[in-house]
Amino acid sequence: MLRISHLANVTRLPQNVRKFYIRKLFVEPKGCSTRVICRVLCYQKPVKKFNWGKNKPHRKIPLKEFFKMDPKLEEVLSPFRAAVKEQGDLVRSLKAQNAPDIDIQKAVAELKARKKLLEDKEIELSPSVSTFDRSKMEDLLKRRFFYDQSFAIYGGITGQFDFGPMGCALKSNILSTWRSFFILEEQMLEVDCAILTPEPVLKTSGHVDKFADYMVKDVKTGECFRLDHLIKASLNKLSSDKKTPQNVKDECEDICVKLDGMTRDEMGAILKKYKIKSPLSGNDLTEPVDFSLMFETSIGPTGLTKGYLRPETAQGIFVNFKRLLEFNQGKLPFAAAQVGQAFRNEISPRSGLIRVREFTLAEIEYFCDPSDKSYPKFQNLANTILNLYSACNQLDGKSAEKMTIHDAVKNGVVANEALGYFMAKIQLFLLKVGINPERVRFRQHMSNEMAHYATDCWDAECLTSYGWIECVGCADRSAFDLTQHSKATGIKLIAEKSLPEPKTVTITEVISNKASIGKVFKKDAKAITTALSSLSLFEMEEVKNHLEQKGSYDLKINGNSFNLPKAMIEVKTQQKVVHVEEITPNVIEPSFGIGRIIYALFEQSFKTRELDEQRTFLSLPPLVAPIKCSILPLSGKVEFVPFVKKLSEELTKLDISYKVDDSAGSIGKRYARTDEIAIPFGVTIDFDTLQSPHTVTLRERDSMTQVRVPVEDIPDLVSNLSKSKITWNEVTQKYPKFEQQDSVKS
Amino acid sequence: MLRISHLANVTRLPQNVRKFYIRKLFVEPKGCSTRVICRVLCYQKPVKKFNWGKNKPHRKIPLKEFFKMDPKLEEVLSPFRAAVKEQGDLVRSLKAQNAPDIDIQKAVAELKARKKLLEDKEIELSPSVSTFDRSKMEDLLKRRFFYDQSFAIYGGITGQFDFGPMGCALKSNILSTWRSFFILEEQMLEVDCAILTPEPVLKTSGHVDKFADYMVKDVKTGECFRLDHLIKASLNKLSSDKKTPQNVKDECEDICVKLDGMTRDEMGAILKKYKIKSPLSGNDLTEPVDFSLMFETSIGPTGLTKGYLRPETAQGIFVNFKRLLEFNQGKLPFAAAQVGQAFRNEISPRSGLIRVREFTLAEIEYFCDPSDKSYPKFQNLANTILNLYSACNQLDGKSAEKMTIHDAVKNGVVANEALGYFMAKIQLFLLKVGINPERVRFRQHMSNEMAHYATDCWDAECLTSYGWIECVGCADRSAFDLTQHSKATGIKLIAEKSLPEPKTVTITEVISNKASIGKVFKKDAKAITTALSSLSLFEMEEVKNHLEQKGSYDLKINGNSFNLPKAMIEVKTQQKVVHVEEITPNVIEPSFGIGRIIYALFEQSFKTRELDEQRTFLSLPPLVAPIKCSILPLSGKVEFVPFVKKLSEELTKLDISYKVDDSAGSIGKRYARTDEIAIPFGVTIDFDTLQSPHTVTLRERDSMTQVRVPVEDIPDLVSNLSKSKITWNEVTQKYPKFEQQDSVKS
Repeated sequence: MLRISHLANVTRLPQNVRKFYIRKLFVEPKGCSTRVICRVLCYQKPVKKFNWGKNKPHRKIPLKEFFKMDPKLEEVLSPFRAAVKEQGDLVRSLKAQNAPDIDIQKAVAELKARKKLLEDKEIELSPSVSTFDRSKMEDLLKRRFFYDQSFAIYGGITGQFDFGPMGCALKSNILSTWRSFFILEEQMLEVDCAILTPEPVLKTSGHVDKFADYMVKDVKTGECFRLDHLIKASLNKLSSDKKTPQNVKDECEDICVKLDGMTRDEMGAILKKYKIKSPLSGNDLTEPVDFSLMFETSIGPTGLTKGYLRPETAQGIFVNFKRLLEFNQGKLPFAAAQVGQAFRNEISPRSGLIRVREFTLAEIEYFCDPSDKSYPKFQNLANTILNLYSACNQLDGKSAEKMTIHDAVKNGVVANEALGYFMAKIQLFLLKVGINPERVRFRQHMSNEMAHYATDCWDAECLTSYGWIECVGCADRSAFDLTQHSKATGIKLIAEKSLPEPKTVTITEVISNKASIGKVFKKDAKAITTALSSLSLFEMEEVKNHLEQKGSYDLKINGNSFNLPKAMIEVKTQQKVVHVEEITPNVIEPSFGIGRIIYALFEQSFKTRELDEQRTFLSLPPLVAPIKCSILPLSGKVEFVPFVKKLSEELTKLDISYKVDDSAGSIGKRYARTDEIAIPFGVTIDFDTLQSPHTVTLRERDSMTQVRVPVEDIPDLVSNLSKSKITWNEVTQKYPKFEQQDSVKS
Repeated sequence: MLRISHLANVTRLPQNVRKFYIRKLFVEPKGCSTRVICRVLCYQKPVKKFNWGKNKPHRKIPLKEFFKMDPKLEEVLSPFRAAVKEQGDLVRSLKAQNAPDIDIQKAVAELKARKKLLEDKEIELSPSVSTFDRSKMEDLLKRRFFYDQSFAIYGGITGQFDFGPMGCALKSNILSTWRSFFILEEQMLEVDCAILTPEPVLKTSGHVDKFADYMVKDVKTGECFRLDHLIKASLNKLSSDKKTPQNVKDECEDICVKLDGMTRDEMGAILKKYKIKSPLSGNDLTEPVDFSLMFETSIGPTGLTKGYLRPETAQGIFVNFKRLLEFNQGKLPFAAAQVGQAFRNEISPRSGLIRVREFTLAEIEYFCDPSDKSYPKFQNLANTILNLYSACNQLDGKSAEKMTIHDAVKNGVVANEALGYFMAKIQLFLLKVGINPERVRFRQHMSNEMAHYATDCWDAECLTSYGWIECVGCADRSAFDLTQHSKATGIKLIAEKSLPEPKTVTITEVISNKASIGKVFKKDAKAITTALSSLSLFEMEEVKNHLEQKGSYDLKINGNSFNLPKAMIEVKTQQKVVHVEEITPNVIEPSFGIGRIIYALFEQSFKTRELDEQRTFLSLPPLVAPIKCSILPLSGKVEFVPFVKKLSEELTKLDISYKVDDSAGSIGKRYARTDEIAIPFGVTIDFDTLQSPHTVTLRERDSMTQVRVPVEDIPDLVSNLSKSKITWNEVTQKYPKFEQQDSVKS
């Protein structure tokens, strides 16, 4: 009988053994549990369709399609789907009835919980995720210093990571791909703005008020805990206790799934009801408090200018809108972009690179006419197929669906062309850097998740062992940001749009005598003129009446009253012929969490050699691999040195990164070492190299196949391979195969 | 008679006019002041030797050599030089006599002041600097959004700047040149470390205690002033007052030049003596206080983990030393590098990009064997000529001297090969990105400026209108940093060095029973074992004696005493055969201020067209120019569109940045606009383009010359020009010249 443990390792088995097992299971499936059958069934299609020898089983499993096809799996999932749909329908009907907010919130919380159960089940049934060994991968990443905890020799701080040489090069390659893919190809305006941000800017953006979590403190030690995490952990502990009665267990489970939607008071009540104490000391805890997720500091010496480390890079672009529009010669649409560090003071960071205190964002703001959200190059990408998990499907308990972006925009699933174009482009980017297309989906925000001003919002999520994680957000933010900053500063953040034909309009405005206002009101003058210029038509009528009747008007600003006589202000109404109208541009914002993309990439490219479970490697695409090529002299023989030197020089000239490994140790061991750091191509200088014509071997990491190549061909060949100008298949057809030296056992 | 105003503008005059003036001056020089003669004399050599038509007069003036040659100028400078030498000799003799510190400090302050006078004079006589119009350049940089003040719509904060599209692209090109020049060519290990740094790390590095300025506050408004700036401004004001008696004026001047070396108390006394008040309100000021230049924040929610925004990136490398050494398979030497943001909370930032609160650093730490500071590739750069301003020359009132780095190391002017190699490489980098070789010098720190641990330290300084500014530091920091971090953490930061032959050594060590120490002393156990492992031989002897005589030893840590009985510790002395010795690597640190390099580059590449003073441009080298190529259709004619599209696509494929300018306006005006943003090459599509064979014109920015080129040649041609694979001269020889359309008047 087959055992689960065998099947879990099926990807690691040699092809013939694997085929044998699979055949066996199909001939003799009786006695297998549903779960076992599911696992093995997953391999059915790939075995038929793809060449497994290529060592890319994950890429070839069309997970979602498989779920659709297989009635057995659907059977498992169907009660979960039904539960989601039932609750989704309830939410819809509550909304239709305009039910009280509190009822809708409760129903949505329950909906979320049911969605989570469905998703967990789907992931559990996914072979690539359930067989993934995270600790083994983390060991590799730490050992070869892709990244590791910051300041570890000082004890370190959670949520901070340093990228070592390999992680840093990977990141830098991903960012340079990003720049050429977005900034160069789409002619975006890149900016590089300040990190330290004065408080008023983030007050306007809403971060100061809303960017917070709930926290409780140990009353004695001052230790802090994030409230939702603490409740979850405590109740999970309680319900796993055998002595806990079933009804309490059920209640605990119910609370845990609903936590996300709860208010501070509701959570506080739970804290009291279950007498939750500090898990570390057993001490009492304080009442829940709001805790800002932004790092605060003061700028300048006075201590009076409060500032924060920016929690996102987008605000830097909005405050520069005027300059950017001017740089673009006043024309819409245009996009600005920024790559940089952002900071969040998480209460209790976890999940490695996914939830950290410092992270790199790459953000784009596409400014366009609100009445025209077409995109000139949309047709180029119209046939891109995306895996869309629409709000509607989420309410119905359905899976994500494959659809061309053309159809998605046409059918109204995605709000407009520009948003759709960026979604397609985001997916192409993720694929280009090496994300598995079957492990990406776009999840639409449901109306309750979406900021009130957003028109439509989709997250590109990648499947990892932590579940589906948001890696890129893509939102149509309407005119919100520019309008807010304009209100706060009194500075017009608008573009001018030519009218099809000139029109005559009636304009009412307050003409103020700035000189005399300045003289009388001094430091308040600016606030007064700003307030005057933002009066509504109705208010201006009132001013006019006051001026006519009393000879002056009392302007109120923040509780202060300023008496403005006729000599200072006048309300004028006149006809004007205008050729342009002023519009506040709308903004579409794709926002990339670079660290999260890197993490998903690590998980998805972490592989184990078929014949040796201990031999792990990263199959990163050559484009983003930290080092493109290794140079391995077979031994320390002095005659090899000139070849190493010449190759190094030539590769440097072509800007191709390489690593010489002339250490002792068999070639096989050195290959394994270079595989670990994802070097896609390896050049070995051996005794035949010394003969004329001088040749070397060139090896490809994923297939481990080798060819024999004239040494002078190597630099261009490696350069072309790294830039995907030539495939490995083409190389193996051009040059003779070489078999030797790369035994796993060596 | 010639006037100074004419001569000051001599570089802007057409060649024939300029020649005429210069001839006139040499025929009829009587009546000219020395200053006028100096100015004109500066042009003598270039006129004879160089082709001025190339629009690069600044690059061709060998400033320093000229000073040497010209007896008239030397006459002006000689009293200044003598004054420096006199004081330099005094400093030397005081040091030789081991005079009291206070006397040496005073003498050094006076020396600095005299050096400054000499330098100011030299700069005053330099034509390129004295004719430079800073406000004109700043206007261009602001108008075309190279950079501008951050958060300006919110009033902005001094010392913070946002880079716009052009500044950002320039910066990104400089950094990518830096990466390929240093990291790729020298096989360095790049890392990317956390910005938020916990206090203990910066306590160890010395920043918490020493990274501070003196400040005073307005007692009523709280307004802050940097003490040295305030004193200088107040005393300058006083001495420019006609009513001030001469002796007071002299005293003021004396204080100003000596300010740099003064203590807090000395400055406080001056504050009192001259009754200096707040320059803004006239209010009294507080006593001077220390003010940390680091931004403080707290990490995590407790408010207990104090952290700072890093003031430099180097510490991130030091704390990762062990991981990096391991990554390098335990071998020395190796270099690690980091590019990233650093922060300094300046009290009163000024001088544009030169003194800011956020800035990009690119730092290298080269770890090597203290007894072997050779550099494998030194010979490759040995003949590089550097302009060295040694400590000795500074004491002697001499200028910087040109010397090959080979000679400088051989003669002991530069301490060692590795330091010399990096200095040469720094200069080559600066030249590569476009810094004028005649406006770079390496200034050696004098012993009083150098940190006590540093062996030798040189600053690469660029000449700007603010004087010589430090752009790159290059220091041999010995083993200081690793030793400090090792002491603070108790973790060995060492490398192992193979001995030529094994040797037998006597080793005395304290063997501690960690389990029982842990049991008894709990949280103090770690401190105890750390303290035990760092005892000196002498202290271990003492421990041994105590244990023998009293049966226990009282270990003192920070005033606490821990009684350790024999059962817990033992002092063992034994013979061991060792094959390796442990060494603490030395560190050579080149540290690049990217913003300052960019600023110097702006000043040095800012030019005015000969025939039109209003037409300014930036002659940045193609390698770093933000955009490599403009595409200009002669008019909005629809037939031009396919050519624009095709060229755009081809350039994108080659990763060449371009800008289409299809706006109305003459070609001449559009050229001027592209010149302002430093686009080196311009492609114009005109009516001839529509004829077969399809050709376009290609224009070079600095010479404004044009050639006619088949349209299909353009992408590769522009790519090769941008990468310096072909020169403009070669292009003009290959393709027919084209003359039209680029009139300055159009």
